[in-house]
Amino acid sequence: MNLDAQWIVGFIDGEGCFHIGISKNESLTVGYQVLPEFVVTQHKRSIQVLHGLKNYFKSGVVRNNGSGKEISCYRVRDHKALLETIIPFFEKHKLKTTKRFDFIKFRRILHLMEKKEHLTPVGLEKIRQIRDRVLFASTNPPSG
Amino acid sequence: MNLDAQWIVGFIDGEGCFHIGISKNESLTVGYQVLPEFVVTQHKRSIQVLHGLKNYFKSGVVRNNGSGKEISCYRVRDHKALLETIIPFFEKHKLKTTKRFDFIKFRRILHLMEKKEHLTPVGLEKIRQIRDRVLFASTNPPSG
Repeated sequence: MNLDAQWIVGFIDGEGCFHIGISKNESLTVGYQVLPEFVVTQHKRSIQVLHGLKNYFKSGVVRNNGSGKEISCYRVRDHKALLETIIPFFEKHKLKTTKRFDFIKFRRILHLMEKKEHLTPVGLEKIRQIRDRVLFASTNPPSG
Repeated sequence: MNLDAQWIVGFIDGEGCFHIGISKNESLTVGYQVLPEFVVTQHKRSIQVLHGLKNYFKSGVVRNNGSGKEISCYRVRDHKALLETIIPFFEKHKLKTTKRFDFIKFRRILHLMEKKEHLTPVGLEKIRQIRDRVLFASTNPPSG
């Protein structure tokens, strides 16, 4: 399945998720792990569009979603793929819903992680605050 | 907000709904009313894309969704607009998820209603069966 860039933007405006997981991990000095992921879920009847996304971005995986056998997801966790493929794509092809604000926060956090800020308590707190900030159309998006 | 046709297809593949309501109505001979509607819901923070759809299709309305003040919807119920604008759009720009099967069933039912079949018990039952049929990628879509 060949996908058009604008179709992808529309579909992600509807179904995409720029997720920043922060979970306890005692083996890390700061005690928490930051896990950014770009995820799209679909009923498995439409799994071919998830493979279409994987094929388009040449990265990520298509998996059963943990929450049920009927649901599949396309997921990108690799930082290099996020920084060099996913983020540039949505910089070039702008999201039209408020999902654009999720994307901007996601990009900001990835850039902080590139500078290893997630490995310090101050940086981790900064990341948590960016993630949890609710942005509206009238809000100035975070810089970077 | 100007929308691109392929963005619209992607967004509808994610968020759109081709709904056929069938509700009791004692004033009709068959006792039921058939109400086809094309609906897209969004958090009201992204209401501008709903107005973008209304502007693109030059039909329908943007409303608060009955189920909550935070949710808005774009809705087209007018048969002329459905038959002359919405249906030709998705015939030209094909949906990529299994939502295409919902669209094909929706179109079939609209065409039956054009022939007034929803006003006879046999036609109403036919419409109900088409609506409730579960189509998969491996199923041949209904003709028409």
